[in-house]
Amino acid sequence: MSSVAPYHDLPESLLRMGPTARSQLTNLMCLPSCRSYLARLVGHRPLEVGSFGIVSGDAGGTPAPSLGFHARMTRVVDLTHVLDPDFPTYSGETQLRYQALASVERDGWNYGEWTLHEHTGTHLDAPLHRCAGRSAEALPAASLVGPLVLIDIRTRAAKDPDAMVSADDLRQWEVSHGPIPGGAIVAMNSGWSAHARTQRYRGADKDGTLHFPGFHVEAVEFLRSTRNVSGIAVDTLSLDPGVSTDFPAHTRWLGSGGWGLECVANLDQLPPAGAMVVVGSPKLAGASGGPSRVFAFV
Amino acid sequence: MSSVAPYHDLPESLLRMGPTARSQLTNLMCLPSCRSYLARLVGHRPLEVGSFGIVSGDAGGTPAPSLGFHARMTRVVDLTHVLDPDFPTYSGETQLRYQALASVERDGWNYGEWTLHEHTGTHLDAPLHRCAGRSAEALPAASLVGPLVLIDIRTRAAKDPDAMVSADDLRQWEVSHGPIPGGAIVAMNSGWSAHARTQRYRGADKDGTLHFPGFHVEAVEFLRSTRNVSGIAVDTLSLDPGVSTDFPAHTRWLGSGGWGLECVANLDQLPPAGAMVVVGSPKLAGASGGPSRVFAFV
Repeated sequence: MSSVAPYHDLPESLLRMGPTARSQLTNLMCLPSCRSYLARLVGHRPLEVGSFGIVSGDAGGTPAPSLGFHARMTRVVDLTHVLDPDFPTYSGETQLRYQALASVERDGWNYGEWTLHEHTGTHLDAPLHRCAGRSAEALPAASLVGPLVLIDIRTRAAKDPDAMVSADDLRQWEVSHGPIPGGAIVAMNSGWSAHARTQRYRGADKDGTLHFPGFHVEAVEFLRSTRNVSGIAVDTLSLDPGVSTDFPAHTRWLGSGGWGLECVANLDQLPPAGAMVVVGSPKLAGASGGPSRVFAFV
Repeated sequence: MSSVAPYHDLPESLLRMGPTARSQLTNLMCLPSCRSYLARLVGHRPLEVGSFGIVSGDAGGTPAPSLGFHARMTRVVDLTHVLDPDFPTYSGETQLRYQALASVERDGWNYGEWTLHEHTGTHLDAPLHRCAGRSAEALPAASLVGPLVLIDIRTRAAKDPDAMVSADDLRQWEVSHGPIPGGAIVAMNSGWSAHARTQRYRGADKDGTLHFPGFHVEAVEFLRSTRNVSGIAVDTLSLDPGVSTDFPAHTRWLGSGGWGLECVANLDQLPPAGAMVVVGSPKLAGASGGPSRVFAFV
């Protein structure tokens, strides 16, 4: 910190930088596509803005990689549905019961007890859900924070509820926004969040087969084999599409140590690149997942 | 966005800013005390760095206040204890049961069901816990994100388990760090997190009276009446000290619409000012609180 200017000089000296320098500064710090642009410059290795040393460099020190937050972030988007016993479930069964144990009027306090299937509402799938991998509490905190890569398949999904995120969708995102950054959270926006309180969310046909979008196993394979991604997320009830009977996206992704999020909300309020996601997943010992509070910052 | 320089000019033109301008930029964006310093300059109104317009100002637009993240944040600190049935509770009773419902070996999936008292582990107290106020899902997302004000009473608490955060402690923090910023989360670090797996966490004496630190009602009154704070947090089992029988901190804070966090972990890894906290509290309809995943960013 030896190169730090005295505090009382800061605001004025920054104003003295002039509009051009300030505009450049604003651009570097803030534009959603800036990280992607810089990533294109340096190729496919995971990029953190901080690694340029302009933002995070102490004189003489090796800068730690920045988490990717921007000082200009002004908006919290809540990616979490309200959870109540009527929230749709994959099985179709009610997976939450709430029992009041006390009341302010009678006891001075309100509190209650939940009986809750782990995979209910906006929730985490830990690797353990599908293999002998990590349980929820064992996921490193840093892996629950990352830049959002938002894959928009709404147009296709509106015509075909069995639509899937393909490897081509991911490549197409990279053409527009640069390589998927290291530690990313890759989310499918199929538009299904809007159906969360209707029959269409599960999309059960007369035979009971479900119909909603999910990840194609080839997209998962592309991410696992060639990119450094922490988690994948869907705005539907399952990482795999509803019609799946063998769940290859779950098997490949969770089976290789990744985590997933299901029933994510409000993705339509976010840009395709530039947001940061924080996953408030449960830290319950041995859990295979559980209801999570998920925020994005833009 | 009309004033934005072409992307391909950015890195070079930033390098052309020279070391002084870059150092000033680094200082403004990154120093933990910078917000406090700026706050002292402009007096007691809630301050957001973005409101200076240097960081967030689009030409011609009114800048939205920044959330307070810094581009230079490099570290996630998990403020959440691992929750299992043995985690200490205020009542002394076990408040969590886990039942496995399926196994990978037998069923291809691991999943289970929790039976859970809301006020267990690192958890939220919603206003509803103590009055007819908001339940957990009704708290605005933006109120769950804010700058950390860390009040260190470890020395006092080591000598006296009934120690409390006083209004004087809060004023003393302001002498060092400037006015408590708007939307802050004010946390007590009593050192009690280290006792979470010992009898000392509850501190029950031979008569069953509990002994652990908490907030004095005058500190809560100071925050409620004169500062704009979103939440208060403790590293113990209750916002009130263990010896309390009438719980005035709960009554005043929750009763006036604030939220609380109890059993917070790892506060000793954070600076007294400059961190940002994100509270991943449950979004369960009608809940009086519940286990939360809490992260700080520094």
